[in-house]
Amino acid sequence: MSGNTFGERFRLTTFGESHGASVGGVIDGCPAGVAIDFAQIDAELARRRGDGVEGTTERKECDHIEWQSGIMDGVTLGTPIAFLVSNGDARSEDYDNLKDWQRAGHADYTYQAKYGVRDHRGGGRASARETVARVVAGAIAKQLLAKEGISIASEWCAGQNVSEENTVGGTVRCTIFGVKPGVGEPVFDRLNARLAYAMMSIPSAISFEMGIGKEATAMTGKDYADRWNDCVQTASDVDSKFKIQNSQLTLTNHCGGIQGGISNGMPIEFTVGFHPVVTQIPLTQCRNGAGEVRMIEVKGRHDRCHVSRAAVVVEAMAALTIIDEF
Amino acid sequence: MSGNTFGERFRLTTFGESHGASVGGVIDGCPAGVAIDFAQIDAELARRRGDGVEGTTERKECDHIEWQSGIMDGVTLGTPIAFLVSNGDARSEDYDNLKDWQRAGHADYTYQAKYGVRDHRGGGRASARETVARVVAGAIAKQLLAKEGISIASEWCAGQNVSEENTVGGTVRCTIFGVKPGVGEPVFDRLNARLAYAMMSIPSAISFEMGIGKEATAMTGKDYADRWNDCVQTASDVDSKFKIQNSQLTLTNHCGGIQGGISNGMPIEFTVGFHPVVTQIPLTQCRNGAGEVRMIEVKGRHDRCHVSRAAVVVEAMAALTIIDEF
Amino acid sequence: MSGNTFGERFRLTTFGESHGASVGGVIDGCPAGVAIDFAQIDAELARRRGDGVEGTTERKECDHIEWQSGIMDGVTLGTPIAFLVSNGDARSEDYDNLKDWQRAGHADYTYQAKYGVRDHRGGGRASARETVARVVAGAIAKQLLAKEGISIASEWCAGQNVSEENTVGGTVRCTIFGVKPGVGEPVFDRLNARLAYAMMSIPSAISFEMGIGKEATAMTGKDYADRWNDCVQTASDVDSKFKIQNSQLTLTNHCGGIQGGISNGMPIEFTVGFHPVVTQIPLTQCRNGAGEVRMIEVKGRHDRCHVSRAAVVVEAMAALTIIDEF
Amino acid sequence: MSGNTFGERFRLTTFGESHGASVGGVIDGCPAGVAIDFAQIDAELARRRGDGVEGTTERKECDHIEWQSGIMDGVTLGTPIAFLVSNGDARSEDYDNLKDWQRAGHADYTYQAKYGVRDHRGGGRASARETVARVVAGAIAKQLLAKEGISIASEWCAGQNVSEENTVGGTVRCTIFGVKPGVGEPVFDRLNARLAYAMMSIPSAISFEMGIGKEATAMTGKDYADRWNDCVQTASDVDSKFKIQNSQLTLTNHCGGIQGGISNGMPIEFTVGFHPVVTQIPLTQCRNGAGEVRMIEVKGRHDRCHVSRAAVVVEAMAALTIIDEF
Repeated sequence: MSGNTFGERFRLTTFGESHGASVGGVIDGCPAGVAIDFAQIDAELARRRGDGVEGTTERKECDHIEWQSGIMDGVTLGTPIAFLVSNGDARSEDYDNLKDWQRAGHADYTYQAKYGVRDHRGGGRASARETVARVVAGAIAKQLLAKEGISIASEWCAGQNVSEENTVGGTVRCTIFGVKPGVGEPVFDRLNARLAYAMMSIPSAISFEMGIGKEATAMTGKDYADRWNDCVQTASDVDSKFKIQNSQLTLTNHCGGIQGGISNGMPIEFTVGFHPVVTQIPLTQCRNGAGEVRMIEVKGRHDRCHVSRAAVVVEAMAALTIIDEF
Repeated sequence: MSGNTFGERFRLTTFGESHGASVGGVIDGCPAGVAIDFAQIDAELARRRGDGVEGTTERKECDHIEWQSGIMDGVTLGTPIAFLVSNGDARSEDYDNLKDWQRAGHADYTYQAKYGVRDHRGGGRASARETVARVVAGAIAKQLLAKEGISIASEWCAGQNVSEENTVGGTVRCTIFGVKPGVGEPVFDRLNARLAYAMMSIPSAISFEMGIGKEATAMTGKDYADRWNDCVQTASDVDSKFKIQNSQLTLTNHCGGIQGGISNGMPIEFTVGFHPVVTQIPLTQCRNGAGEVRMIEVKGRHDRCHVSRAAVVVEAMAALTIIDEF
Repeated sequence: MSGNTFGERFRLTTFGESHGASVGGVIDGCPAGVAIDFAQIDAELARRRGDGVEGTTERKECDHIEWQSGIMDGVTLGTPIAFLVSNGDARSEDYDNLKDWQRAGHADYTYQAKYGVRDHRGGGRASARETVARVVAGAIAKQLLAKEGISIASEWCAGQNVSEENTVGGTVRCTIFGVKPGVGEPVFDRLNARLAYAMMSIPSAISFEMGIGKEATAMTGKDYADRWNDCVQTASDVDSKFKIQNSQLTLTNHCGGIQGGISNGMPIEFTVGFHPVVTQIPLTQCRNGAGEVRMIEVKGRHDRCHVSRAAVVVEAMAALTIIDEF
Repeated sequence: MSGNTFGERFRLTTFGESHGASVGGVIDGCPAGVAIDFAQIDAELARRRGDGVEGTTERKECDHIEWQSGIMDGVTLGTPIAFLVSNGDARSEDYDNLKDWQRAGHADYTYQAKYGVRDHRGGGRASARETVARVVAGAIAKQLLAKEGISIASEWCAGQNVSEENTVGGTVRCTIFGVKPGVGEPVFDRLNARLAYAMMSIPSAISFEMGIGKEATAMTGKDYADRWNDCVQTASDVDSKFKIQNSQLTLTNHCGGIQGGISNGMPIEFTVGFHPVVTQIPLTQCRNGAGEVRMIEVKGRHDRCHVSRAAVVVEAMAALTIIDEF
């Protein structure tokens, strides 16, 4: 439980600090004989970089993936797939003045408290740059899920308008289509619990809502309960319904497609909330080990609104969660 | 990943169907030499039963715990602690008419889809009766945490007034006091991610919010970021602060005491939303394997508002999550 | 990693001290819809007790299994199967004089060193009585494996003749028939490594040999290498061979049916060595916490040759290891 | 359980095929703040290469380690340590004629059976080249263990004399000094069981013996049982004994320093047997998918006696097993 591995069967271990040699990962458990679509992986990385989206960071990595193992002639071998992405555009000197200071709202203090040492450059391991590895692995997971008729989509919404010198948060609504009934485990490893775990592991995630979410807490049971759609008659009829997006086993989908921790065949729907990026430009409040507090100029490059980028990571983590059930 | 085990170091495995012989659990990883306070465990079970709380189920079990192993002369041995609670007050015949029918909004359909067979009596394994085992283990975890100066409290709130023949949901606000800085793991096994996982594994949980929660998605970074409290000067000063409830490392606690997945020493705060119990009394919409839909009289005994009981389970899961970090 | 759980997919957690209320286990991951043959389980327990075998302990438990969950009307539900066996024939007073003394060659000292407290009665958790739970779970695993055409057999051999007032060890040769090619994982979780782990976890196991075993260390590669049997021509031909016991993909089976950690379809063969029971009757050398050494009369009831009983546990652990691969 | 990860707390995941871009690993769980001795790691790699040992392979890699993460200014950060070693001296064309043929005695057939595809160049993932990553991680583990006063030594012995055009196996006797009493878990995760698992995961390992090993199966209990050394009087006396190599808690060490799965403070001793390398030079018997059997010229470069190299891997796996208990 050292924190850097996700999944049991399709298992991703990530590594890398923001300004170290590289970030990357090892996927263990990917089936053999799968022809990888590398262009799709690059496209997901481009989405994650926020190419062309206003308000995203100016740090633009080329994100060239160096594949180390597990793939021969473009086809998976069933052995671990290791990959790394060099940190080419790191400007570590931007962070020299932060070496002994912990920025308010960041993980600087907690890493120092836990480890007694930290890489202060660009957030080190706590940087969202680590999500590069999640997106690469998530892209492969999506390719595998597509073979099972499963697709993942998301919509994002900023919490308010972006203005210069401030940052905003927002929400990502994610839907997983095509998961058949009976996927997930009861009790602790409920599919909704595992999704919550996956989503709350994303940097700056602050809330998770399944289906209709928090709204349900103010409803009566009569209004909340998803009623059967009596137009869906037989099991085989149900089966054919999975192939279409608007499968309607129930008349509503307040529960978000999971009951008792197990999928019911309806689309799986949930919402993840993200707090705004906490870095204050150009001056951020900092604290040192002696407890002194001071305003310090923060250089680096940061997102004003990172929610569009977070959406790509939400999808990747959804893919990694679902593939791990197969 | 068969779903019925929680934790890696203080590991709880639960078993039991609502109307089977018993529900119970095995705790592996409890330290040796701990004198168990059995009265405190019984008190937690009484809270879980909702003794004296209006609107809770009429099924009143005595919840007598039969300890099987791991404890000698009231002291833990370091070996697995197995315990079971007999299902004494089960009225299985109440469920005879539901054998071939799946209630709307319940896990009947998904269990059938997953397993091809299910115990239809009282919800079987999907019944919240399973949480008895969580509360017993959580009570032991609380005793261990108390030795570390850690305590857990909760407040609950119904989503609306309870009226006869309807059910309501609500929210539970939970606070963990006394966790020192540096607890938790980065990246995937963030403490907030593990709390989300733990909470969303509770029957009828539908949302999880860390700290200020979803409200943060509409704030600017300037307003959201928790600023250092410059009255707290030194590390030893910080240490002494943990011993008091209102530790104030930061001026606000919007993040809920966790940054980068690791505790910062402030109280850990989160909110869990619960949807209302979905059973409709006296008639609930049901569906059978052939796809027929019908209104059927549901006997059994059910909560009209279960949020007060859920709060005890929230605390238990919080305790199990935190103890697993030690 | 608290030690009392075996397996990932068909996961057994055991509990219980030799003279506590019961020994038992929880199986998580057993498929649903399986009709359990309870008589076969009882027969395995009788084999484990050594009923009718000379030289085995006089402690004769009836070993009545109390099933708690996971089975309804004799059929598995897919939920955890919890069971316990009461310790009826325990004569704890036999051990009163050993409370403060650690017997030479036993785990008394190491348990005390690890836990600071121990159940001194009959060996407590270190007693081989714990293997009751392994045999119950192993019996269920065997029933599942039989559906896949897999069977397990063993032969045991005492190291020398049994005489009164002494104990002897011996070896168990185990063969698993019917495992198809391609079962097991490479690198760390090799099937042979997992078998070694399973076997060395049996009380008093002291050696593990795969296939021809230690003899291979003195052979040349030319003599050791298992050559292809050119009578087996095609893949479908290979498949049909698995159904018969003497499948002959290779002319010899020096490797014991596993290459690179993965089964090759030949019978899987290995040998486990057991050291003799270390209890000295009637006087055994003991040591107390102050370091005093003294000869003390040991009552209790002990095996003079336990290898026949160990063979049943070897088979059970083999079954648990193989079923965990499915 | 995808096979490529070892350990729970100090967790090594390895990757890489023999003739792919690189072999390497990710260590998760290494403590922060440790100054790494890189020269010691290189020295272990040199031992593994068999530099200067007659009869070892002519494939001589420089084994230059490229560190990717987890270390800054030579000091560990507590985050994952990723490293890779390029496969510089691979002569993949040597294996062109083996693409459709499975060598007798190798893992070619089983990998094909499991994955349906394989990297035929130099054994691919099944090559012992993978052990480079084990040795790197094991070297770091040794450095951590040294701080705890724990050291590991081994002696190896060839099964017979090496002659041209044949290969021989042998045994490795390994001793771990300085492990205090109380390390290890009871029941399944016994320290001896975990050592057996670790050792049998090494390519070509065929037997594992704890302490006196198989010899014990022919002894009487009276002769086998390790008697207390009554010269060791008190607990503090015992403590001081750990600091010297010849700690003598017991008069003999037949059990190899572990009782009931837990260390007793004596040196931990075990023997691993290795079968000879199975590659036959210059002609090896091969089989193709259609079942045809033929003698084919095998080029590549191979060990005539690999036991000296295996000894380094034995030590590495011992270090990884012990460090995982802390």
